[in-house]
Amino acid sequence: MQAAVMHGAGDVRIETVADPRLIEPTDALVRVTCAAICGSDLWPYKTLEHSDSGRIMGHEAIGVVEEVGPDVHTIKAGDLAIMPFAYSDGACEFCQEGLQTECVHGGFFGQGAENVGGGQAEAVRVPQADGTLAVLPPGLDDALLPSLLTLSDVMGTGHHAAVAAKVAPGKVVAVVGDGAVGLCSVIAAKRLGAEQIIILGRHPARTALAKEFGATDVVSARGDEAVERLHELTRGFGAHSVLECVGLDESITTALSIARPGGAVGRVGVPQGETMPASRPAFYKNVTVSGGPAPVRAYIDDLLPDIREGRIQPGRVFDRVIRLDGVPDGYRAMNERQALKVLVEF
Amino acid sequence: MQAAVMHGAGDVRIETVADPRLIEPTDALVRVTCAAICGSDLWPYKTLEHSDSGRIMGHEAIGVVEEVGPDVHTIKAGDLAIMPFAYSDGACEFCQEGLQTECVHGGFFGQGAENVGGGQAEAVRVPQADGTLAVLPPGLDDALLPSLLTLSDVMGTGHHAAVAAKVAPGKVVAVVGDGAVGLCSVIAAKRLGAEQIIILGRHPARTALAKEFGATDVVSARGDEAVERLHELTRGFGAHSVLECVGLDESITTALSIARPGGAVGRVGVPQGETMPASRPAFYKNVTVSGGPAPVRAYIDDLLPDIREGRIQPGRVFDRVIRLDGVPDGYRAMNERQALKVLVEF
Repeated sequence: MQAAVMHGAGDVRIETVADPRLIEPTDALVRVTCAAICGSDLWPYKTLEHSDSGRIMGHEAIGVVEEVGPDVHTIKAGDLAIMPFAYSDGACEFCQEGLQTECVHGGFFGQGAENVGGGQAEAVRVPQADGTLAVLPPGLDDALLPSLLTLSDVMGTGHHAAVAAKVAPGKVVAVVGDGAVGLCSVIAAKRLGAEQIIILGRHPARTALAKEFGATDVVSARGDEAVERLHELTRGFGAHSVLECVGLDESITTALSIARPGGAVGRVGVPQGETMPASRPAFYKNVTVSGGPAPVRAYIDDLLPDIREGRIQPGRVFDRVIRLDGVPDGYRAMNERQALKVLVEF
Repeated sequence: MQAAVMHGAGDVRIETVADPRLIEPTDALVRVTCAAICGSDLWPYKTLEHSDSGRIMGHEAIGVVEEVGPDVHTIKAGDLAIMPFAYSDGACEFCQEGLQTECVHGGFFGQGAENVGGGQAEAVRVPQADGTLAVLPPGLDDALLPSLLTLSDVMGTGHHAAVAAKVAPGKVVAVVGDGAVGLCSVIAAKRLGAEQIIILGRHPARTALAKEFGATDVVSARGDEAVERLHELTRGFGAHSVLECVGLDESITTALSIARPGGAVGRVGVPQGETMPASRPAFYKNVTVSGGPAPVRAYIDDLLPDIREGRIQPGRVFDRVIRLDGVPDGYRAMNERQALKVLVEF
């Protein structure tokens, strides 16, 4: 089959690779119908060391099940399903607690693990198919597919930030970052009843979309100036809930600084630095810091009806649609911020 | 009056100072009947820069109200009351949310603020008396006073660690530190229904008391060895709730490392370092980090009945009783770990 393979920083190639096949009796084979490039794919795109073998990329996909192993019971050939970025058995105690990213039989797509491919490929082996795949009901409007695809990562991740930051009706929310996750965090905050949603970002087209998604205020400053501006917007107190969707040291420090005393920061931006402040500002303000890789599988059932019924449209974060052979250029475009988020159609 | 005044690191003197007096109409004057030396008093005892004026110390006290200002309505002369380490008006939005340490009219005793003294003195001016003081019911057995005194800080702080770390029935709890706060955290964890309580500490007399308070396991190792031992005790998963009662870099890192994925760390040890890990281990495990200075005023009503009815005995953390003139030696003894916690009787 054809797949997007990353051989090192800035080096993504479309190559013919071995077709995936069932290995474990709990596997499914999925023919990908649409996939995406994730902001987190840009970290290896910037830093991955060269290898001849390379890594099949991608961890966001929707596809049609082609074949299932003998121990797969709830998924069958022909099903259209969402493939979350992590696979999970759905049965272990972490899965039962809704933390599928910690499944004791789980793992991650597109990370180069042996025999685990990625979504930026014509097909993918899905381990723990019963627990992993979320089958879509038949007869869905194709126009919903981009939004449904976001349930494999970016919308679930934005929702996780909001849950971790304890967004609730009437709360003042700040979203740090206007990338696709930040924009989905705005959707999530609005959906959970936030009264005021302040987005911190400096890309006019993105913050404009954030406003369409429900943001009430935009802060384009950074650092101390952003902190000051946010306090002006919140009676001097800061935000009850801060959704950190970047992961850089400065954005984490900003997030901690704009949280209201007793508030919470939900982190979903993958931290790029080693350390964060231990003492001021979070400790003395009793600010809770939560979050991590989103257990998106846990959120699909919750979010799907809102997409089906048009209440949320997270698929609007895709501003470029390409075919598989356009994936290398798609990485370049996202890395150079020419594209917000790229959808790959097969 | 006589007061314990700290003039610099290691330099605590009993001195005659000006009697406190009512300044604001919301003040009360309290004649101290018992007070304590706090583990957190040892930080200035180690590091305070010399000053001729010095700082009246102490933020844990019980006393008799002598006089109140004209705008004090719920407190009257003759009341016996607990003085929490922070004063607060009880009316602002933070107080209403139960975060009295952030009261917009609040502050802290024993920190050297102008016209705000401390509990290690014969009398103290209590700002915002209506919101600050918790009046004790008449007719209490004097034998309960040490335990009641812990509601001014150490027991409330242990409870705060447990609340921040989401201790609940059936949970596996780890307490980092066997000082007075750690021991009160064990009491709090037991009281909230923890199933397993592992204390990390290496002082046999203290961990023995922890076991009397409800600890099920003791880990005396530190660092990586402690992390390994804790995982052995928890089926390899770690603790649902970790109560960090030390504040040193190593203990914070240990706390993050022994939390179960999806678990929570409640920090009440005042962080001594500037930074903590931003990424592994907490972020990738979705561990929540919460806590800070405890709003002990919020917890008094909750904890008081358990003390009155003998269900908890946090006063057992006091292992030395002195008079005011013994305070300098009390600091020395706590600093040299000869005493766990010192009670000052007047």
